[in-house]
Amino acid sequence: MTGSTRHGAVPAPLSLTFETYAHVREQSLALALSLSDADTTVQSMEDASPAKWHLAHTTWFFETFILKAHAMSYDEFHSSYNFLFNSYYDAVGERHARPRRGMLTRPSLDDVKAYRAHVDRAMGQLFEAGVEDEVLPLVELGLHHEQQHQELLLTDILHLFAQNPLMPAFRAPQPLPMASDRSGSLDWLSFDGGIVEIGAKADGFSFDCEGPRHDVLLRPFELASRAVTNGEWLSFMAAGGYDTSSFWLSDGFAVARDHGWRTPLYWFEKEGAWWSMTLRGAQPVDLQAPVCHVSFYEADAYARYAGARLPLEAEWEHAASAQSVKGNFADQGQLRPRPQMSEANETGEAGRLHGLYGDVWEWTASAYAAYPGFRPVEGAVGEYNGKFMSGQMVLRGGSCATPAGHMRASYRNFFHPDKRWQFSGLRLARDLVKDKSDA
Amino acid sequence: MTGSTRHGAVPAPLSLTFETYAHVREQSLALALSLSDADTTVQSMEDASPAKWHLAHTTWFFETFILKAHAMSYDEFHSSYNFLFNSYYDAVGERHARPRRGMLTRPSLDDVKAYRAHVDRAMGQLFEAGVEDEVLPLVELGLHHEQQHQELLLTDILHLFAQNPLMPAFRAPQPLPMASDRSGSLDWLSFDGGIVEIGAKADGFSFDCEGPRHDVLLRPFELASRAVTNGEWLSFMAAGGYDTSSFWLSDGFAVARDHGWRTPLYWFEKEGAWWSMTLRGAQPVDLQAPVCHVSFYEADAYARYAGARLPLEAEWEHAASAQSVKGNFADQGQLRPRPQMSEANETGEAGRLHGLYGDVWEWTASAYAAYPGFRPVEGAVGEYNGKFMSGQMVLRGGSCATPAGHMRASYRNFFHPDKRWQFSGLRLARDLVKDKSDA
Amino acid sequence: MTGSTRHGAVPAPLSLTFETYAHVREQSLALALSLSDADTTVQSMEDASPAKWHLAHTTWFFETFILKAHAMSYDEFHSSYNFLFNSYYDAVGERHARPRRGMLTRPSLDDVKAYRAHVDRAMGQLFEAGVEDEVLPLVELGLHHEQQHQELLLTDILHLFAQNPLMPAFRAPQPLPMASDRSGSLDWLSFDGGIVEIGAKADGFSFDCEGPRHDVLLRPFELASRAVTNGEWLSFMAAGGYDTSSFWLSDGFAVARDHGWRTPLYWFEKEGAWWSMTLRGAQPVDLQAPVCHVSFYEADAYARYAGARLPLEAEWEHAASAQSVKGNFADQGQLRPRPQMSEANETGEAGRLHGLYGDVWEWTASAYAAYPGFRPVEGAVGEYNGKFMSGQMVLRGGSCATPAGHMRASYRNFFHPDKRWQFSGLRLARDLVKDKSDA
Amino acid sequence: MTGSTRHGAVPAPLSLTFETYAHVREQSLALALSLSDADTTVQSMEDASPAKWHLAHTTWFFETFILKAHAMSYDEFHSSYNFLFNSYYDAVGERHARPRRGMLTRPSLDDVKAYRAHVDRAMGQLFEAGVEDEVLPLVELGLHHEQQHQELLLTDILHLFAQNPLMPAFRAPQPLPMASDRSGSLDWLSFDGGIVEIGAKADGFSFDCEGPRHDVLLRPFELASRAVTNGEWLSFMAAGGYDTSSFWLSDGFAVARDHGWRTPLYWFEKEGAWWSMTLRGAQPVDLQAPVCHVSFYEADAYARYAGARLPLEAEWEHAASAQSVKGNFADQGQLRPRPQMSEANETGEAGRLHGLYGDVWEWTASAYAAYPGFRPVEGAVGEYNGKFMSGQMVLRGGSCATPAGHMRASYRNFFHPDKRWQFSGLRLARDLVKDKSDA
Repeated sequence: MTGSTRHGAVPAPLSLTFETYAHVREQSLALALSLSDADTTVQSMEDASPAKWHLAHTTWFFETFILKAHAMSYDEFHSSYNFLFNSYYDAVGERHARPRRGMLTRPSLDDVKAYRAHVDRAMGQLFEAGVEDEVLPLVELGLHHEQQHQELLLTDILHLFAQNPLMPAFRAPQPLPMASDRSGSLDWLSFDGGIVEIGAKADGFSFDCEGPRHDVLLRPFELASRAVTNGEWLSFMAAGGYDTSSFWLSDGFAVARDHGWRTPLYWFEKEGAWWSMTLRGAQPVDLQAPVCHVSFYEADAYARYAGARLPLEAEWEHAASAQSVKGNFADQGQLRPRPQMSEANETGEAGRLHGLYGDVWEWTASAYAAYPGFRPVEGAVGEYNGKFMSGQMVLRGGSCATPAGHMRASYRNFFHPDKRWQFSGLRLARDLVKDKSDA
Repeated sequence: MTGSTRHGAVPAPLSLTFETYAHVREQSLALALSLSDADTTVQSMEDASPAKWHLAHTTWFFETFILKAHAMSYDEFHSSYNFLFNSYYDAVGERHARPRRGMLTRPSLDDVKAYRAHVDRAMGQLFEAGVEDEVLPLVELGLHHEQQHQELLLTDILHLFAQNPLMPAFRAPQPLPMASDRSGSLDWLSFDGGIVEIGAKADGFSFDCEGPRHDVLLRPFELASRAVTNGEWLSFMAAGGYDTSSFWLSDGFAVARDHGWRTPLYWFEKEGAWWSMTLRGAQPVDLQAPVCHVSFYEADAYARYAGARLPLEAEWEHAASAQSVKGNFADQGQLRPRPQMSEANETGEAGRLHGLYGDVWEWTASAYAAYPGFRPVEGAVGEYNGKFMSGQMVLRGGSCATPAGHMRASYRNFFHPDKRWQFSGLRLARDLVKDKSDA
Repeated sequence: MTGSTRHGAVPAPLSLTFETYAHVREQSLALALSLSDADTTVQSMEDASPAKWHLAHTTWFFETFILKAHAMSYDEFHSSYNFLFNSYYDAVGERHARPRRGMLTRPSLDDVKAYRAHVDRAMGQLFEAGVEDEVLPLVELGLHHEQQHQELLLTDILHLFAQNPLMPAFRAPQPLPMASDRSGSLDWLSFDGGIVEIGAKADGFSFDCEGPRHDVLLRPFELASRAVTNGEWLSFMAAGGYDTSSFWLSDGFAVARDHGWRTPLYWFEKEGAWWSMTLRGAQPVDLQAPVCHVSFYEADAYARYAGARLPLEAEWEHAASAQSVKGNFADQGQLRPRPQMSEANETGEAGRLHGLYGDVWEWTASAYAAYPGFRPVEGAVGEYNGKFMSGQMVLRGGSCATPAGHMRASYRNFFHPDKRWQFSGLRLARDLVKDKSDA
Repeated sequence: MTGSTRHGAVPAPLSLTFETYAHVREQSLALALSLSDADTTVQSMEDASPAKWHLAHTTWFFETFILKAHAMSYDEFHSSYNFLFNSYYDAVGERHARPRRGMLTRPSLDDVKAYRAHVDRAMGQLFEAGVEDEVLPLVELGLHHEQQHQELLLTDILHLFAQNPLMPAFRAPQPLPMASDRSGSLDWLSFDGGIVEIGAKADGFSFDCEGPRHDVLLRPFELASRAVTNGEWLSFMAAGGYDTSSFWLSDGFAVARDHGWRTPLYWFEKEGAWWSMTLRGAQPVDLQAPVCHVSFYEADAYARYAGARLPLEAEWEHAASAQSVKGNFADQGQLRPRPQMSEANETGEAGRLHGLYGDVWEWTASAYAAYPGFRPVEGAVGEYNGKFMSGQMVLRGGSCATPAGHMRASYRNFFHPDKRWQFSGLRLARDLVKDKSDA
């Protein structure tokens, strides 16, 4: 998919308060604090959307699927907004063409903020009046949808600012952490094969494509204890990685050559050193941090260069599911404006897996496809649930731009294999070959 | 050319005051009064530029060619602005790619206004200190350059607003004039052939491509007393004009078919009536007003449909030169936000020519080329003077968006034959066939 | 992939005679019998290759990997042919750009035939002298490679002839079979789930991507007893299938709309009836025959319309492996110039599966990816073995254009999901839901 | 225009015999003698047409406008040929799309030769029966049309062969002339200004765009005695001509950069020397020969580099009209497969102008436009006469590929300014500045 988000609630017993709603919604506004009317209007490429559009579209979701459908006497904010801020719900009427989102200098950012306030007020009234059981899952879905767009807003703003020769900083620059070997040595953690279960469990929220939970047959494998770092990527570059066709998928090598890829996206050379455009403006490349803004094609080529492979999504989920993820709507904290190598937060084998959540999305070797028994949810909300299951690759984990409560082991992110503007990196895997006597 | 402006002063004895300078400069700011930061940032197509860019680029002209070159101790406003707001002067350094002008959400509109104020202050100081004789023509050139961009700013804003489904109005809508037959009947005014002079005279400002003044040989011809109207264009449409290949140049017919042209740009049908997007928002098409926003290809096809032809630029200038143009920097008035059929302001044959100046630019049959003996001015200001003499057609007169002091008989405007976003229309011409005994 | 073929022999004990070699090679020439020099030269689109190129490239394979590498004193036929007829083996030197293959009016078809004869003579001498054990698998690989190109030659010639308003026939037209209900009713055959083995077995030839043989976990499923027919496709069309976005993958719907797809490729309407361009020229659409020349996107949309899904490749192979395939190099018979509904050739459950081999390639729901433990063969022949495992979908079975000895249960054909010029159709599958008490 | 030819006879009293007809027609076939079926089928780019198409289209002209319209009982050769070989005559029915001409592997070259023989026989019968006066001008027009296509056939075959890495020769290679200074020194010949007449005279054949004959006003000018040579072009290259933006029109510099132009078309470097692909295969660049295969943009840039300009077409014609051209249908001789510097064939000032006819077409500074009073001929033959008068530049003279009887002072060839595959070069002009006392 190209910057779109996706929905499809699975029913869940819920206790969701207006405070939680308000907390998530405020988080979106907080992201726009340092942005001007113009910053939030421009669309820097077809894959991206203007920040204003993210702020309005998430609001449109609550207006359309909850207030118009379930509130007693809701007054629509503006009759044209359904047309302007619908993304891909054909069932809800015509919509403004995606590549022309950047033409909308009106409504202004202030108009959109007023739209948000209007809808939030009405949502408050709805909560006060008491939300019906069937509506609560839609609200929860809307909040997860909002969180997806919080990450996309950051992703797209970085892309926009990177087009500007002035390289403006979204957040104030910050010194790098001390140059100790923070990334640590790379260990290989081994996992047995066999039939294991993956997919979302009944408890807690998930998007419909995360289920049904089902059996998969795994072979014994190993997973790297941490993501590939910028320093390692420099070695790949120095080894001629971008020029060695035998590392690459055929399509990938063609794309890399056509676009002149020589480094991850946003890197540039200045006075003999590598820099990268980040949400904190231009920063020296941190050798110990995970490499970020690489495409699937590059990740796959790196893995072949390193004598390894990308993990299957089932391998990743199986390995990660032993490690609990902290965070929910309530404790959603500050987004980090740059990937850093985070610590593992668990003991045990899986606990030695560093940086699964919150540094970079990790490309897997799995094409995005329906799980066995997958059925789209009925109606407009679910209208497009399986529509993107073509030509895209699954990413797992979560990045420095992902809200804390929005990461879980079963989460399936997906993008086309040539996309680089997401906060995407990689972790290596390999087949586990036992003793020769076992082979 | 595609929305670029062009320079090249011819020396002229001048008395130019700071008041005149300030007057023209303020006029630009006045145009931006109703525009938001976002409105002035977005580039709606490659041919267009953001309003902010127009405001900054015209300022850059004075900063670069006058203040940096001739002021005692000028402090550059910002070191990156030369890169950002240079348009096509290779000699003055690298420049920001034209199609990426819409990425510059920073500097903001307020920053650009501060830039204008900074430069205007310095220009005031320069005038106070006394401007050298050699510099005055550059100031005058800068003001004409500014006026060109005033029209382009309006042209580009209309294009931007026309992309927005909300169709915002740049100026408050206004009722149409009463529906009397304002356009009047079409008369044919005849002109003798022979050797006549065209080109800019020594007195008064002109761009270099308007000279040298030289002889041309004209054959007897007739010119329509007014421009083709919207009402007449509807007849062309009703007669299948857009589908009849024999009216069209081969390239034009292909372009019209590829782009699906069925009407002038900005027209649309609503409840059985024709409307047009204008600077006053969506308005019913005024049948008596000159048709506007047609390409050369369409104008040429219309002329063939009407059994006539477009005038040569020399014919136009010869006919128009008998008619004086009122207006200079000082009395530059309110731009009109829509073409209307204006009155002739002279008596005599040429005086019966209505609407030469101030309604629509009139396409001619002449390709834009060098006049005999043309030589580009030396140095950076003149660097690109003749560069656009390829593939473009000359337009004459001036439109409702042209500043009053910016129109004259010798003025050569030029655009590619497929461009429609300018305020461009047409006036018919035809060969004058005398008595059969003369033929 | 886009018309390329792929290699990678797995070692096999072989008894391969020159007669077999000659038989397969002659089959290629036989395909060209009705073709002119011009017919074999033109490249009708980038995906396709000229017939002459197919004839030369397959010959180049034997020359390069066998004669130059293993024959005592082989005289190269022409020094430039390595450049001209190499397809994608970077290790073997530079190559002529794929989209420019149609520029090669020289060498002529006669030159290419002479090239074939030259290489065949040298291969005869090699066989006479006795082929080393290590070389025999390369010869076998070359013959399978040749068979792939035999099918592609037919596929590409049909595409070329379909561009010609004269719609020439590759083979003489033939009356349709009698209009009995040859396709029969559609039955659903059920298969148990569990762990099953798929992938090529050690005995017999296979391409490397068909292995390693490995376990997969299947859920209970049903497979349609025959492919979807033209008659059924007409119902899909009549039901607005091409206009109903909810049937389609998002990418697929966009492609269908952009290309104006309303029918399978090569269909056209004439005097109220549906016709199709075929290797026998224009023919009425046979309602009982399998639909052919549909893309994956269309096949997938049809399955959703029919309340079913496409089979996984593992399901297909598991179901098909119970059914033996007749045919090897020796009994390679006449290719059929049009899909027809063929009979099942086995008894038993799998035996009731009609038309698995020899009608149309059947799109599966599986993206083309490496089997667990897949390793490319070393060296130039295997250089690109896994390179195409991105963005393509697996097809199974074989078409009317596939040589008889070239079909097997483990064969993995693959093309991008928007390609339609292959002889590609579909067979439906669905999840097997047991008794309600089990659900 | 892009490879199309154009018509429009002006009536002329004629004595045209079948021998003349047959002579011109045979000349076309002679050009195809060394070409294979495939050579004559492939279309190497959209601007070019297959040789087979040229041979058939010229035949279609006689069949359609003469035999079908004026012969008693003509049997159409094939009902589909009107569709296949019509070029741009909308009035004569639908036509096969230009860019798809290369898909027509059928009809074969032999079929087209049979078509030619069929039409020639019928034309013979028509001549025997006596051709009506009104038809003879159409026959003459057809023969000039045929001659245009003879040149285009050569132009297009060279382009096709240049795409082939084998660089086949259309004619046997030939040693270069001895390396004496054949081009001679460059002299400037001066011409007075004043009112002069240009345009086709009543006697002899001309295309309609060559008239009406009319007065033009010229200023005193000078013309170079010969065309610019390859040796001089090398100096331009060595001086950084392709990199110096100030020599170039803005559009031209962009095109040159986008296409990576560094030399004339068909040049390549081999072992430190410059070679060029020609109709005689690859040949060393002849320093004394006129530069060929340059675009208008390059020619214009060269002129500016040389401190000169391109001539106006009226200047060229005025200068050339003093020099008679030998040649008519009857003595049409061998086309030369390469430009050489030919001798002047007249005494007097104009007689000192070398190489006006038969080396290279010479780009002028004049956009292709209607002469005053121009009127298209009525009916299908004239349907498109003025259609190409947009965006193209006039070339004058004639090239080594132009039939001898097809060159005259008033002839207006025209192509878009970026086209290079024609046999196009340039001759310099400059304003004549008399004594300073006159200035």
